[in-house]
Amino acid sequence: MDVSKAKLYQAKLHDTLLTDVMPFWMNSDLIDREHGGYITSVDRYGKSYNNDKSVWFQGRGLITFSALCRKYGTRPQWLDAAVTGKNFLEKYCVDTDGRMFFTVTREGKPLRKRRYMFSESFYAAGMAEYYAVTKDQKAWEKAEKCFETILMLYRTPGNDPYRITPKTYSGTRDERAAAILMVLLSTAQILRRCNTKKASYYARIAKEISDAMISLHYRPDLHCVLENVSADGSFIDNPSGRTVNPGHSCENAWFLMNEALYRHDDGLMKKALNILDWSLELGWDQQFGGIYYFTDISGRPCEQLEWDMKLWWVHNEAMIAALYAYAITKQEKYSEWFEKITDYSLTHFSDAEYGEWYGYLHRDGTVSHTQKGSMWKGPFHLPRCLMICDSILDAIIKDRPAGPVL
Amino acid sequence: MDVSKAKLYQAKLHDTLLTDVMPFWMNSDLIDREHGGYITSVDRYGKSYNNDKSVWFQGRGLITFSALCRKYGTRPQWLDAAVTGKNFLEKYCVDTDGRMFFTVTREGKPLRKRRYMFSESFYAAGMAEYYAVTKDQKAWEKAEKCFETILMLYRTPGNDPYRITPKTYSGTRDERAAAILMVLLSTAQILRRCNTKKASYYARIAKEISDAMISLHYRPDLHCVLENVSADGSFIDNPSGRTVNPGHSCENAWFLMNEALYRHDDGLMKKALNILDWSLELGWDQQFGGIYYFTDISGRPCEQLEWDMKLWWVHNEAMIAALYAYAITKQEKYSEWFEKITDYSLTHFSDAEYGEWYGYLHRDGTVSHTQKGSMWKGPFHLPRCLMICDSILDAIIKDRPAGPVL
Repeated sequence: MDVSKAKLYQAKLHDTLLTDVMPFWMNSDLIDREHGGYITSVDRYGKSYNNDKSVWFQGRGLITFSALCRKYGTRPQWLDAAVTGKNFLEKYCVDTDGRMFFTVTREGKPLRKRRYMFSESFYAAGMAEYYAVTKDQKAWEKAEKCFETILMLYRTPGNDPYRITPKTYSGTRDERAAAILMVLLSTAQILRRCNTKKASYYARIAKEISDAMISLHYRPDLHCVLENVSADGSFIDNPSGRTVNPGHSCENAWFLMNEALYRHDDGLMKKALNILDWSLELGWDQQFGGIYYFTDISGRPCEQLEWDMKLWWVHNEAMIAALYAYAITKQEKYSEWFEKITDYSLTHFSDAEYGEWYGYLHRDGTVSHTQKGSMWKGPFHLPRCLMICDSILDAIIKDRPAGPVL
Repeated sequence: MDVSKAKLYQAKLHDTLLTDVMPFWMNSDLIDREHGGYITSVDRYGKSYNNDKSVWFQGRGLITFSALCRKYGTRPQWLDAAVTGKNFLEKYCVDTDGRMFFTVTREGKPLRKRRYMFSESFYAAGMAEYYAVTKDQKAWEKAEKCFETILMLYRTPGNDPYRITPKTYSGTRDERAAAILMVLLSTAQILRRCNTKKASYYARIAKEISDAMISLHYRPDLHCVLENVSADGSFIDNPSGRTVNPGHSCENAWFLMNEALYRHDDGLMKKALNILDWSLELGWDQQFGGIYYFTDISGRPCEQLEWDMKLWWVHNEAMIAALYAYAITKQEKYSEWFEKITDYSLTHFSDAEYGEWYGYLHRDGTVSHTQKGSMWKGPFHLPRCLMICDSILDAIIKDRPAGPVL
């Protein structure tokens, strides 16, 4: 990728973030002026079609608005938007046992609480990002405390204060999900960056988690990262055990590249690049373009009805991973992948008329859902992708070595 | 529909059942010769890609093989197939508290147990159908006992022996699903038919349940049956509350037609026909043909990623409902719908090369999943549809009044 092309992409992505995506959200029903917090289920035009609130997205919104302030300078509207999410999270989203809810009503009454610790991880990362911008010590303490909770849930799940009935009979089959390690790793990386005084502590944890990821889920014999393996890392020969999620794998790849750069670990870097290579080879749809949502490593049928749909976030994570790989290795194959995925995405996911990206396409690239947000889509993956690609392109343009981005 | 056309459809559907669909399943890995029971996750060619067993489908297989014997005469291979499901169910699928599992391993070890009573309802209906063919008194007693369990779960959910953590905070929002009433109604109807000595008891229950369905979910003001309403039947203005599932509604429509015929209730028949009319109007895809999986009654965005896919069972239920409505009313619009849906289905879902129907199509009618079975698809909806349409077409051809089919 020559400098002029890098500049073109940078301008395009910067423009997408600041004159398309963020204005869409700021002019939408996202920010609840009455009850605080974020309503992410907005239609093509930004109008709410569901006032229930996702706790994941209260944390993810806090991450995004804080990160925007860090990267582009504090703007009052972004800082206010961060604060409304932070306040709503603290007031309504934490249960008395320290675990968090999964969904709440517009007013903040609990609707659902789940066993997983994703709500907590986005809260911890959000508080840390907010601290990085404001130096609000209380926010940092909350990030720190919440991170210890999720670490405890990972290391000693029997100590979970939420005594929910187990979902499956682990005595019959005990599965481990790569997603848990991914979110722990990226949260540890964010906390490490946001408070340099505590960096060595979070660096140790990031190493522990990335080691577990490689030893349990990284399978060079199968050319993939398995989403679900047995507790001892062994292969489960059923649809769950054979699942490879190319979007997750790309996201995992750039978390691991970030880690390899941080600790100057060439072996880990090689593995991260392998994951990216395998994911794109397996995931790219040769017929219609775009990246599948789910694949089966043995080519057996996928169970998910949506397996061959094209999802915006999958493409965001692949854009970051491919561009990062290029910045690190300067191999043209990665810049070609970055261009191919970015061009596909801008062509198919963008809504030139009303702004923001559609989230879901049929396999053939036609839009299947016109809404711009849902309980699973809000201002997170796309703004993060656009911010990180902006930074990486900057390094490429200025011929600086690539560094950690998380 | 004239007699010659009815005969053509009858021959086609009869042929599909007995020389295409059932031979596919009998030659597939469905029947587990080693451990008993059914493996429904088979690929396009009938080979297992997942040996885990769905408890729903142990019951549904027992229903189907028993019903085949009842309708077309007992064939040893069908009876043996019914027995293997029955034995597996009794041996491995009932927990010590009387509730049933949701999935078990090939060997019968429990994998998952859920709060819902669908496993139990298919078990009860399966045992009743088996009793109707064999007069096995013990099977009847099990059907009867299991039905009392699901009735208790419906009437006094607080007495559920399975103390699973509630899924949602019912104090914040208490939803009722039409699916619970549907499965209770059809199970009561099956038990009523299978043991005429107990018919009056199950008739009372079928009336109680169908009354509840109409008072809670039937909405002439909105022209639909709502899948989820508040405990008092009031409308919930969010994606869950606005959901209309046209396939479910068609299935509901013919359960209610069956009920209206049984008790000579013209008012209920009118409502059942309304449900069918509304479902087809809302559900039929004017652009590509076929019936959507999910719709939103206000035309707001659907949350389900698979909302616009075309599923085999939706079309099976619509075929039954349209043909039944024609047999009852002799209105040509219903025979036209039956022909349109049947022709679409035979063209798009059939696999002329390897037999059985595909289960899942993209909105545009292209095949999205090549497997013939899964934890959710096995020998149930399609054989039931083909058997019931065969019977209804017989009445049409012989100019007999339509009667109950369940």
